[in-house]
Amino acid sequence: MFKIAHQDPTSLARAGRLVTPHGTIETPAFVAVATRGTVKGVEPWSLEEVGVEVVIANSYHLHLRPGEETIARLGGLHRFSGWNRPMMTDSGGFQVFSLGAGKEHGVGKVASIFPDDDVEPRPKPRPSVKSLVRLSEEGARFRSTVDGSEHFFSPEGVIALQRQLGADLIFVLDECTSPLHDRSYTAAAMERTHRWAERARRAFDTQVEEASLPNPSQALYGIVQGGAYPDLRRASARVIGGMEFDGLAIGGSLGRSRQEMFQVLDWTVPLLPEHLPRHLLGIGQIADLFAVVRRGVDTFDCAAPTRIARNGTLFVREAAAHRINLRNAAFREDPQPIDPSCDCFTCRHHSRAYLRHLCLVGELSFYRLATLHNLRFVVRLMQEIRQAVVAGRLDDLEREWLAASQAA
Amino acid sequence: MFKIAHQDPTSLARAGRLVTPHGTIETPAFVAVATRGTVKGVEPWSLEEVGVEVVIANSYHLHLRPGEETIARLGGLHRFSGWNRPMMTDSGGFQVFSLGAGKEHGVGKVASIFPDDDVEPRPKPRPSVKSLVRLSEEGARFRSTVDGSEHFFSPEGVIALQRQLGADLIFVLDECTSPLHDRSYTAAAMERTHRWAERARRAFDTQVEEASLPNPSQALYGIVQGGAYPDLRRASARVIGGMEFDGLAIGGSLGRSRQEMFQVLDWTVPLLPEHLPRHLLGIGQIADLFAVVRRGVDTFDCAAPTRIARNGTLFVREAAAHRINLRNAAFREDPQPIDPSCDCFTCRHHSRAYLRHLCLVGELSFYRLATLHNLRFVVRLMQEIRQAVVAGRLDDLEREWLAASQAA
Repeated sequence: MFKIAHQDPTSLARAGRLVTPHGTIETPAFVAVATRGTVKGVEPWSLEEVGVEVVIANSYHLHLRPGEETIARLGGLHRFSGWNRPMMTDSGGFQVFSLGAGKEHGVGKVASIFPDDDVEPRPKPRPSVKSLVRLSEEGARFRSTVDGSEHFFSPEGVIALQRQLGADLIFVLDECTSPLHDRSYTAAAMERTHRWAERARRAFDTQVEEASLPNPSQALYGIVQGGAYPDLRRASARVIGGMEFDGLAIGGSLGRSRQEMFQVLDWTVPLLPEHLPRHLLGIGQIADLFAVVRRGVDTFDCAAPTRIARNGTLFVREAAAHRINLRNAAFREDPQPIDPSCDCFTCRHHSRAYLRHLCLVGELSFYRLATLHNLRFVVRLMQEIRQAVVAGRLDDLEREWLAASQAA
Repeated sequence: MFKIAHQDPTSLARAGRLVTPHGTIETPAFVAVATRGTVKGVEPWSLEEVGVEVVIANSYHLHLRPGEETIARLGGLHRFSGWNRPMMTDSGGFQVFSLGAGKEHGVGKVASIFPDDDVEPRPKPRPSVKSLVRLSEEGARFRSTVDGSEHFFSPEGVIALQRQLGADLIFVLDECTSPLHDRSYTAAAMERTHRWAERARRAFDTQVEEASLPNPSQALYGIVQGGAYPDLRRASARVIGGMEFDGLAIGGSLGRSRQEMFQVLDWTVPLLPEHLPRHLLGIGQIADLFAVVRRGVDTFDCAAPTRIARNGTLFVREAAAHRINLRNAAFREDPQPIDPSCDCFTCRHHSRAYLRHLCLVGELSFYRLATLHNLRFVVRLMQEIRQAVVAGRLDDLEREWLAASQAA
């Protein structure tokens, strides 16, 4: 299912091919976020045109609305959404976190309170509120944010849920700890996550009536936990890496800074079986791409390109930090495309001045046009990175990108 | 500029061709509303694919943001927006109304309080508030709804504004009265609108440096007023019809009911010069299409198809009143396209069940997909109507449509 085509000699970076029932992903690859079964503002046809190869939808959100039974009766999430290419679904572990400890601690999953982050302002820790989740050995009981109804996610139930959705690559239920959890809580949670992984693995292996499934050839990813504690990460990498999953994910908490996130990868990845694809769950920024690829990550999902697009922040190769804020008055009468080197629909048809106007008046068209550009930008960058890995010139490419941002 | 290809022998309906510097409009035609220089959620390329032939943008809104000077410096509204096909701009007369008398009276322009309307609920009269507009013989002084700044629209200024925008078909400044204005106010306002029309006509005829204009071959429409008073409408039709405009528009108020709107057309249209194209400013619903075409209207703008789409109401040929509300639980697991007889992108790719899901969770993609469908539906219906006029079978077509809605 996963073939490594090229291994970079000077880092853990590798170029590969991840074969799924709905097509092949050329890795390293960016995974576009389609939480509720659509990338916000972009329909499947345009996603393909942009070059997106794989999307990740959200088990928790689709469970609440419209429900996995409905999706299964309509032929599964591929048919339901009209996206006929590779698809992942996460397990809901992140929601268990963000409605629980994340809410209580007022933090996000990924490197939540980066003090050394000079590129993108992170959300400030929010005032802590009461958890909507009760965790037990059995699983996670939580209240719906939609209607307050009570739901229960067990490792086995989440496999059944994802079988009904029918994505190609699915994830075990894990407990995503907070960067504010101490070592002892993090260790206990990791042990429970390992037991949950074992249960999920068994549930996944249990024969079911294949005729009733939208996608009988799913692949299951285990998730490594352990917070920002090197010994825990190493232990988790060995345990999860030894469970014969089809792929392995590195889950949060990823520490309190970008440097800690990189350290987490440094502790974890070298201990993972080399032949399995590695997924990094939810990274923050474009500036991290080179760093995570170097550390041996094959796929990663990231909501930033689409989220910041809707807010008017657009990627530009030759710009400081590779981005501009379109709300800036400097672009008021700028007839150039967002990025003169970009070949996306938006850059071929529209000026910065027009897009800035749409952004400032809050037109729906803006969200789509901006999202198309940022997606295309990341897809092309990942293609460049892959080619550089194959050609053995990843260092050169990173230097070129750095120079482009400094020339601006 | 306007050629009548076929005149229906039994009604005032006609099929024509309206030639503009940016292409030809086959009439009768629907004009899509692009208030701030974009149809909400749909970029120009998709509009063309849907078959939209002409859009109408809004002088008032574009004056406030981004400003006509900015648009002129960027080559005019066609180049600015990327829409290279026929385009209208209204004069701002409707905003003068809706920020003034409309606000004070708590009513809309078009047939605002239809008591006999059984098809679409109209907005209820709102509690009256203070006008943001002061009208004088000179023009309209108003405060911006964006930042409170003061602006002044005169008949001459609005011509200059629209010259900078550069649409193909532009309108004189008029005063759009309220259905709650009495006869004496309506008569006085109509007289002033006639004087404004004369001033606009003169300003339009004044030579300007053509090199500085984005579109030197604009055509100017006069606007007939007179409320729901037959003698006033007839007087206005004669006066405006005699002023040698390139086209004529029937402006609001259009009365208090659909029947009154039809009466306004019955009083007005027969008195207008036959060779000029006639535009109806802002009609409410799809059910009115046959009626207004029969009464001699060549083009009409209507925000309803796009507005109701965003709210989940989608056109279906074989449905009561030719529409369904997608929020209805009946569509929860409906695998059919919105309208099985439709050839639009949305109907070719997506099920009612999926679109309903997107609608209920408020996904951005929904607004676009729904809008594409409703636009395509109206465009095709207008094509059918035009063919029926040419073939002399308008009655038959209307009967077929009525039967389709009753069969449902």
